[in-house]
Amino acid sequence: MKKIDHIGIAVPELDAAIEQYQTLGFDFDHVEEVPEQKVKTAFFELGDAHVELLEATEPDSAIAKFLGKRGPGIHHICVEVDDIEAALAEYRAAGVRLVNEEPVIGAGGHRVAFVHPKATHGVLLELLERRSTDAD
Amino acid sequence: MKKIDHIGIAVPELDAAIEQYQTLGFDFDHVEEVPEQKVKTAFFELGDAHVELLEATEPDSAIAKFLGKRGPGIHHICVEVDDIEAALAEYRAAGVRLVNEEPVIGAGGHRVAFVHPKATHGVLLELLERRSTDAD
Repeated sequence: MKKIDHIGIAVPELDAAIEQYQTLGFDFDHVEEVPEQKVKTAFFELGDAHVELLEATEPDSAIAKFLGKRGPGIHHICVEVDDIEAALAEYRAAGVRLVNEEPVIGAGGHRVAFVHPKATHGVLLELLERRSTDAD
Repeated sequence: MKKIDHIGIAVPELDAAIEQYQTLGFDFDHVEEVPEQKVKTAFFELGDAHVELLEATEPDSAIAKFLGKRGPGIHHICVEVDDIEAALAEYRAAGVRLVNEEPVIGAGGHRVAFVHPKATHGVLLELLERRSTDAD
């Protein structure tokens, strides 16, 4: 594991949340829509990581379900790894319960996979391997 | 705001959680007891930040209450700032609801203050200013 890539926070209304996080001193960067995950995401730079505010774009989005069940708050944390295939193979060998058995494409075109909260004491953990062409 | 300092995760039983996080590939560092906050904390290094697993040492600990209400999971995130007094003054001026109006001493002897989840869309946010003598 290399580092924390981002922390994802579910919010009911993105514009109001962006304004509030700017008031709190978070450094707003940009908004990106990720149709595959039915979310609109606001990115805030924070050191070599970032904070993502997540708004559902469809009622059946995972974010909409989370908000309905628990209300606004931290939805997931994302950790960068060098080799996501190797990490998932190790997890499968250790019997770690996964949401994604194989990597899927996430925001920015990076390969990601979610680990089940049952395997992490209640934390939705995302692994991310950056695209090798990525210049971030 | 400089960077993410750590992510705090509430767990019911520290030893089992340490073992599981090691299985997940997190880099275990040490355990520290913080009597003021009635918690025992396991530190895992992750890039220039860390993950803290938090076990309650008293039934009236904030962690025990969190576990009783929501179960295991992410309890708070901590962001490092250069000047915690200045940050809190700005927050008070902007009407941001705070848990700690003034800094208190946290793990490692650093000055910390918590922002109320009502001000952050459900996130318990800790600000931390490192001791100037700290060599970390």
